Amino acid sequence: MSAYPGTEGEFRTSRESLQALVEAIFHRCGMPADHARRLAETLVAADLRGCHSHGVLRVPDYVRKLTVEGVDPRGEPRVVSERPGAIVVDGGNSMGQIGSVFAMRRAIEKAREQNVVAAAVRGSNHCGAMAYYAMMALAEGMIGIAATNALPTMAPWGGRDRLVGINPLAVAIPAGRNRPIVYDAAFSACSHGKIRIYHQKGLPLPEGWALDAEGRPTTDAAAALEGLLRPIGGYKGYSLALIFGILSAGLSGAAYGTRLGNMNDGPRPGVDGHFYMALNVGAFIDPAEFGRQVDEAIDEIRASRTAPGFDRIYLPGEIEAETEERYLREGIPLNEATLADLGATARSLGIATDLKTP
Amino acid sequence: MSAYPGTEGEFRTSRESLQALVEAIFHRCGMPADHARRLAETLVAADLRGCHSHGVLRVPDYVRKLTVEGVDPRGEPRVVSERPGAIVVDGGNSMGQIGSVFAMRRAIEKAREQNVVAAAVRGSNHCGAMAYYAMMALAEGMIGIAATNALPTMAPWGGRDRLVGINPLAVAIPAGRNRPIVYDAAFSACSHGKIRIYHQKGLPLPEGWALDAEGRPTTDAAAALEGLLRPIGGYKGYSLALIFGILSAGLSGAAYGTRLGNMNDGPRPGVDGHFYMALNVGAFIDPAEFGRQVDEAIDEIRASRTAPGFDRIYLPGEIEAETEERYLREGIPLNEATLADLGATARSLGIATDLKTP
Repeated sequence: MSAYPGTEGEFRTSRESLQALVEAIFHRCGMPADHARRLAETLVAADLRGCHSHGVLRVPDYVRKLTVEGVDPRGEPRVVSERPGAIVVDGGNSMGQIGSVFAMRRAIEKAREQNVVAAAVRGSNHCGAMAYYAMMALAEGMIGIAATNALPTMAPWGGRDRLVGINPLAVAIPAGRNRPIVYDAAFSACSHGKIRIYHQKGLPLPEGWALDAEGRPTTDAAAALEGLLRPIGGYKGYSLALIFGILSAGLSGAAYGTRLGNMNDGPRPGVDGHFYMALNVGAFIDPAEFGRQVDEAIDEIRASRTAPGFDRIYLPGEIEAETEERYLREGIPLNEATLADLGATARSLGIATDLKTP
Repeated sequence: MSAYPGTEGEFRTSRESLQALVEAIFHRCGMPADHARRLAETLVAADLRGCHSHGVLRVPDYVRKLTVEGVDPRGEPRVVSERPGAIVVDGGNSMGQIGSVFAMRRAIEKAREQNVVAAAVRGSNHCGAMAYYAMMALAEGMIGIAATNALPTMAPWGGRDRLVGINPLAVAIPAGRNRPIVYDAAFSACSHGKIRIYHQKGLPLPEGWALDAEGRPTTDAAAALEGLLRPIGGYKGYSLALIFGILSAGLSGAAYGTRLGNMNDGPRPGVDGHFYMALNVGAFIDPAEFGRQVDEAIDEIRASRTAPGFDRIYLPGEIEAETEERYLREGIPLNEATLADLGATARSLGIATDLKTP
């Protein structure tokens, strides 16, 4: 349910052309062609869904990670242990997307027989938007769950030290004739990436998103980047972030919390952890019946009355799905800063930038 | 992390004496002795943890359910289907606690071999506080997850019709030398039960908890009981409630949302659903190493600086665990209304009330 300000009037590029450029950039950083393609796909997929904070905006960061900050462009994930229902994957210090796709694929395959399977990932790095991995389960009629550890940017409830990551959770649930339900959000009032977008655009933050470094509420994006994000629901968001952080790090033996690094010095490479799960709906109930029930819940919400100030009620993932359809037709909007950063990064690697409008 | 107003100066009863009274009440309603004991235990356990909204305050409601509203006091849960990792239980229209303990026990047993096991329950009823079931996993060194469907009391984000339950989620995670992490909360800013407590005590609600029947913010508990609860984090809380509601109802084929009944006419008996999961930590990692990592996260939070206005930082479940220790020593406080209701209910069933202080 992302909505970004000011995308109208921005440069629009086709998916194919953006994919080709980003793929070429990562390949030039030393990644094997298939890994470069996958990594580019996950970022372009985020932009397509309107989740620009986790899209190609990240390319310069990722290039630094792959070339100077210690992430291994040739890192290969491997299964460390596999027991019924339980997989542990070591990402081999590859980008988080590589180990995450590997782990979720294995969880989905295994769930065909074992129905409820969790894959814990260690030895990993930043893995982008989580919806991508949860949605991988949909094609198999499964429910996908994806969670990750993140650098600590929140205080525990009642505290003021950065100790808890916003640790996003994504869940994808297949429907019947309706679009699937796809949720992907952090347990903070907003993501760090969204604050970066507001900062980039010089816009003030909505109330309630952030605290400054002294723990005072702020709407200044620069102060927020130096300060703390606020959890949703007070102690509830703090607790859920802590729990999904522990699931992401503890079950795989990845680094947790401040051992991951910090927002000033950046993350330590190859110590991040994630948590994936696939639930095979057909092991519990006739998938058609499940789909009918999900459809009923969706239809009932869609037919209900709006509150004052709203002209439509959205299901989780609906804005993103409609954005994707629109961007596929009209092109993916890239703002000036992202476009300039992408261009500079490409040039520094000797790659021609010829982004095309659709 | 519950904190209730005005428990000082209330009547204090011993756990044993409260358990004996409540057990006798449910037994007199026709429940077999072991079911009556279990149901009483779950309610007393909630009171002990300071979660009075889900404690013996519910006894008169439960007696009505068992005697006139169609819940079967002799209902017996059974396994409907069992596949690797996946169990479906029919509660047989027993109280939700009976089917929930049955399902969670089976999930835990099965998880000794299959490591990650989910149990979906249908044919059930109100099951009380979810922490009880999640915590059952702790003795086995497992992570417990418990979720349930609830009567719709929230609107979808942007809407004004009661379509989404607050659908609480509980997670229990074993630690090393520290107490386990135990989370149990709804995806609303507060529970319906808490609003009932404020209403019973004539206290105004904190801001942000509720909307009145027209969808306007209110701090009046009576207006809130006629209106809508608000989700945490706006669309995030709405989405998570929807998702855990679908997991609780869709996988078992239980009723979802408005088909469950409503807050005015009450729930339809025997159509509720729950979702339980046990994750065997030892299938992923050496449990001692897991415990050390959880301990580190806990210790780091405990040693961190407090924010202005706070004198201590709590871990999830810490207030409840300390409350339990204190109440075991000093007795469980029961306010006048709860005490009067309990007494009247007992008398109506010909049971002597002789609650003892510890």
